[in-house]
Amino acid sequence: MRSEETVGALGESEVLRRILARLRPAEATRLGPGDDCAVLAFAGEAVVTSDMMIEGPDFRLAWHSGFELGWKLAATNLSDVAAMGARPTALTAAVACPADTPVSLLEVIAEGLDAACTALAPGCGVVGGDLSRAPVLTAAITALGQLEGRPPIRRDGARPGDVVAYAGALGLAGIGLSLLFAESADEGVAHDRGLLGLRDRHPAALRAQLAPEPPIALGLTAADGGATAMLDVSDGLSIDAARIARASGVSLDLDPEALAAGFGTQKGERVPLDAMLHGGEDHGLLAAFPPEAELPAGFLPVGAVRERVDDGAPLLLGGEPGEPRGWDPFTVRPPGS
Amino acid sequence: MRSEETVGALGESEVLRRILARLRPAEATRLGPGDDCAVLAFAGEAVVTSDMMIEGPDFRLAWHSGFELGWKLAATNLSDVAAMGARPTALTAAVACPADTPVSLLEVIAEGLDAACTALAPGCGVVGGDLSRAPVLTAAITALGQLEGRPPIRRDGARPGDVVAYAGALGLAGIGLSLLFAESADEGVAHDRGLLGLRDRHPAALRAQLAPEPPIALGLTAADGGATAMLDVSDGLSIDAARIARASGVSLDLDPEALAAGFGTQKGERVPLDAMLHGGEDHGLLAAFPPEAELPAGFLPVGAVRERVDDGAPLLLGGEPGEPRGWDPFTVRPPGS
Repeated sequence: MRSEETVGALGESEVLRRILARLRPAEATRLGPGDDCAVLAFAGEAVVTSDMMIEGPDFRLAWHSGFELGWKLAATNLSDVAAMGARPTALTAAVACPADTPVSLLEVIAEGLDAACTALAPGCGVVGGDLSRAPVLTAAITALGQLEGRPPIRRDGARPGDVVAYAGALGLAGIGLSLLFAESADEGVAHDRGLLGLRDRHPAALRAQLAPEPPIALGLTAADGGATAMLDVSDGLSIDAARIARASGVSLDLDPEALAAGFGTQKGERVPLDAMLHGGEDHGLLAAFPPEAELPAGFLPVGAVRERVDDGAPLLLGGEPGEPRGWDPFTVRPPGS
Repeated sequence: MRSEETVGALGESEVLRRILARLRPAEATRLGPGDDCAVLAFAGEAVVTSDMMIEGPDFRLAWHSGFELGWKLAATNLSDVAAMGARPTALTAAVACPADTPVSLLEVIAEGLDAACTALAPGCGVVGGDLSRAPVLTAAITALGQLEGRPPIRRDGARPGDVVAYAGALGLAGIGLSLLFAESADEGVAHDRGLLGLRDRHPAALRAQLAPEPPIALGLTAADGGATAMLDVSDGLSIDAARIARASGVSLDLDPEALAAGFGTQKGERVPLDAMLHGGEDHGLLAAFPPEAELPAGFLPVGAVRERVDDGAPLLLGGEPGEPRGWDPFTVRPPGS
């Protein structure tokens, strides 16, 4: 085994040089990394979102390969851009790590970021970033997108009578996380047979958790298809449906039978209703469409928008009040944490 | 003393609500925080920069008030936008902290971010962000700006014969850091008489380190005044001058007498040449101007751009090769760290 070069031994400039060599320019790039700022072409209205992920609460290097981590960082932010009905154009990546971090880890994270942009949002790329020192690996991604003349699809536009539809994997990421905690929570055994066996037995669930593939292009499709409200499901379908409902002053009535029919089995993995509703980290698109609209390919109907009656619940399940429940970084404690 | 509400006890949604109440919208805001993305008006080319600061390597809460920390986070990113010759339009702020962090700390950080935008870059504001859990307080800021039809002022445009000029405080921030390490490095005594006395005796140096006021508006002025190259001095004048020199294929010859004349005493603090050259964290603007240009008010001449002779040093001091030296987060260890 060759000894690993560390970030501390190499220093900021050389590490940045190695990372930047792994990033392809975005189409919008007018000036890439290396100056005080990157310069991007923009027209009309832009969307912007930022997100930070920290080793421990948000990911574990014992489970994620660096490539998968970079992929997930990109994918989860691209999905926020898609959920506005916008085209992702650029990411910035601010990364901080301990001085003894192998440079090769940052290199493969960069490769994962770049690969996810190319695969999920062609033309988008990492245009700039920052490297700092921190006690644990920390990454903050900012994603930018263009609306290209479309109005943004907000969460407050759902109207009674709209169809509720969903595109993407649903519940798989939550199953993946539960499996990882149940069978591979101990960092010492994570890269051994336990984790590999798990990946063999539950490839779709592990992949959805570790390197999700949200349907980025469907964000534009949904906007063009008349979506009245949309968001990406990050904290759980039940929580995010309630968010649309509250913002729009309506109730979202999710249909357990439609969910089971559309998402009960995905890529060979059986997905119980509880995982669909409360699993979180799916990063698929939850949208409302007018009743007369034809659902864009990729979206499946999962419920309906109802008028909110006095004191009515924002979330309904088959017409009965449901409980929004899922991920809060401060109040939810995953098993083993 | 009332017991402090913590982030963990309150939960993400309520903490975000309290933080957002402290932020004024940016002029460019078309849709503020609360959806998957913020929406901003943009025209032409945009600049973007991201930066992460971590408790420990980058700041200490024993020294910074939360308000000062928020101010510094904004100011240091606004200066990167200014250094491109752009007008800052929006910030995003991704913040992560331990669950036992008092909510009031995040509130005053938000107030500092907002106040710095209002004071240094009117019209700019925080448009979105993220809240996560981390072992130490961590903040990642992304700043966006508009070029308004101007070409970006890059670091690679300096030409032999240009005048090198500087605007802003120089060396004060480094003096402030040295004083803090020398007299108040122990966290246990930081908020007692030691730190307060230090602030009384060296107000300008402490202020420059803890809540700098970079000359943001002068970025546009310099662009309109014909600047051929510009950057903000973050790692130290000597390092950043060498960066312009390398990028432009020239030598930057800094004049110690001009530096002493222009910056030897600032706001009552005596600033030695060593602090000016190697202190870092000044976030003033270092720029090159054509010899025939009139230096914009606020810039003082500090040297000249020379043709780089074979094997010549990028940095010269009074015509002699100088040593670029300052801040690298991985290789520089401040005393006491």
